[in-house]
Amino acid sequence: MTKKKSALNVMKGIDAPETVSKDAAKRFLAKRKKDLNVDETVKGILSGNISVLSLAITLIESNLPKHQVIAKNIIEKCLPYSGNSIRVGITGVPGVGKSTFIEALGIYLINKGHKLAVLAIDPSSEQSGGSILGDKTRMEQLSADKNAFIRPSPSSGSLGGVARKTRESIILCEAAGFDTIFIETVGVGQSETKVHSMVDFFLLLMLAGAGDELQGIKRGIMEMADTIIINKADGNNVHKAKLAQKEYENALHLFPPTQSGWTPDVLLTSAVNSTGIEDVWLNIKKYQKLTSKNGYWLQNRHRQAKFWMHETILESLKSNFYNDAVRKKQIKEFEKNVLEGKISPFEAAQELLDKYFKF
Amino acid sequence: MTKKKSALNVMKGIDAPETVSKDAAKRFLAKRKKDLNVDETVKGILSGNISVLSLAITLIESNLPKHQVIAKNIIEKCLPYSGNSIRVGITGVPGVGKSTFIEALGIYLINKGHKLAVLAIDPSSEQSGGSILGDKTRMEQLSADKNAFIRPSPSSGSLGGVARKTRESIILCEAAGFDTIFIETVGVGQSETKVHSMVDFFLLLMLAGAGDELQGIKRGIMEMADTIIINKADGNNVHKAKLAQKEYENALHLFPPTQSGWTPDVLLTSAVNSTGIEDVWLNIKKYQKLTSKNGYWLQNRHRQAKFWMHETILESLKSNFYNDAVRKKQIKEFEKNVLEGKISPFEAAQELLDKYFKF
Repeated sequence: MTKKKSALNVMKGIDAPETVSKDAAKRFLAKRKKDLNVDETVKGILSGNISVLSLAITLIESNLPKHQVIAKNIIEKCLPYSGNSIRVGITGVPGVGKSTFIEALGIYLINKGHKLAVLAIDPSSEQSGGSILGDKTRMEQLSADKNAFIRPSPSSGSLGGVARKTRESIILCEAAGFDTIFIETVGVGQSETKVHSMVDFFLLLMLAGAGDELQGIKRGIMEMADTIIINKADGNNVHKAKLAQKEYENALHLFPPTQSGWTPDVLLTSAVNSTGIEDVWLNIKKYQKLTSKNGYWLQNRHRQAKFWMHETILESLKSNFYNDAVRKKQIKEFEKNVLEGKISPFEAAQELLDKYFKF
Repeated sequence: MTKKKSALNVMKGIDAPETVSKDAAKRFLAKRKKDLNVDETVKGILSGNISVLSLAITLIESNLPKHQVIAKNIIEKCLPYSGNSIRVGITGVPGVGKSTFIEALGIYLINKGHKLAVLAIDPSSEQSGGSILGDKTRMEQLSADKNAFIRPSPSSGSLGGVARKTRESIILCEAAGFDTIFIETVGVGQSETKVHSMVDFFLLLMLAGAGDELQGIKRGIMEMADTIIINKADGNNVHKAKLAQKEYENALHLFPPTQSGWTPDVLLTSAVNSTGIEDVWLNIKKYQKLTSKNGYWLQNRHRQAKFWMHETILESLKSNFYNDAVRKKQIKEFEKNVLEGKISPFEAAQELLDKYFKF
């Protein structure tokens, strides 16, 4: 039952022609219940079959141990065929025009012969109701294209879990022949750090006339951006956008230099009118050229791979400690005492750890 | 022997009149070897005895289990007397004039009747040779004042360990009556995040004429700053400093708003000439007033206390996993395979974890 529920959940909003319907997903999982064939699935992925890819990601997202074992095997077999894409993180607060932007850039890329996968990380989607990428009416043109694969954020789980699943999905998408991967996130939480650690290039979408529109974006994100895009630079907004561009350029100039040797640019786009879109892509390619030459591109990928190994270890150690009903109660108690100044944070930690390791 | 060595290490550079000499430290530890009296030490700290405070911090910094037990008891007993200070983080790359600035602001505060403790976090000090605050010739005037207590960074240990020790030392300093605590760090590593999570206010020192002078400061630090100070605004540099002030003000204006409701300011100082120093202090007081009123001050302290509890737990879980000779070898092996694309980071993590939890 859990399995079916999970399968249904992740199917939400992706029943575009090239993906599969809820019924197909149900039938697939029912059929595979007894005999899930790893090799067949891998073969399907490598041949670029989007239905198979989609269902394999469903397995990655499933929390059933049985599914996890199969997913693990699929990932390992796809691994040698992965890595050959440009991975781009795209963030910006709701209202900045992210989906229109992704649609415009996506169409541009597909017209140039690229294959594009769009994944999302938004651990808050369950609470907020409206998951990013979950709305079928968004990116209509892109989602109807056979060279595009759009996948909403896994609909539940901790940030660590969701991020890991997205990171694993990238491997399958690459094995399926997608040469460009977008990872979308909302710029309001902790997700950006995770996304930043799985992409080659990080785009931040902003609006002209900072002030109120920026309410909600998290501090620290600006300094992660490889390029800042001022979107909605159209109509009466053009002048304001140009001023903002100048301001951001000046601001970025004051930032410490990046490790990659790259100087972040500020670009103007109108996603609605599809203007400035090509410049964004040329900018990303310029970055790729520079960092491939100076070695940073590969260094960064290697650092990220190591990061994810240790990140996964950390997540497991944490969940082994924290996911325990008795301990949760103890932690609450200790937190209370810490806040009331009855015990130092260190002593509280020590006592909790003593109980953990003794057991 | 370890004990003596450790005691000698931390004594480096703090034998100002009000602190203790290396010999005194040796004698103290020798005397206390059999009979370290917690109550006596706490009494000494509460009476403001700097020699006792200094030696208690030595115990915190010691890695001997015996010392750690005593340190723990001292901290618990000092805890009810702690918390009544303004904790200020101060960062900036070497050459920005940090020590001259701290000396100038420190003298100003002491003349106003304050008691100031200056601690440092610099986990790299062992490698780089030159520990911050470790140079006796720095802050001459301040270190000779009985109302100032200057303590260099613990001379060895992981960032997590060093940060925890500094955080514990704050408690003792507050119990000893220091109403203002500066935590100095160098702005080039991970330390700033840790410092940020133990202070009420975060100062970033910069120089006019960005470019080269900024080389080395870590990205992400600018967005942590509650106030940016442009130092060395003197002589021929004044005009340039004023231009930089304007630029930074514009840049900060583009940053997302802070959670505290505070808008970071950009101030000019000349630490050498002691100009602009009072404005820095008034700025900090203004922040304290605002955030005390809107509740952020206390919220932040509470969040930090919880953070340190969970941070300590995390550090322990990690060190329990990583500090094992056999595992270290396994990790190296797996990292290699991950980098060569033979295994996914997740599978590598899983295999390492399986071995850990089975054992």
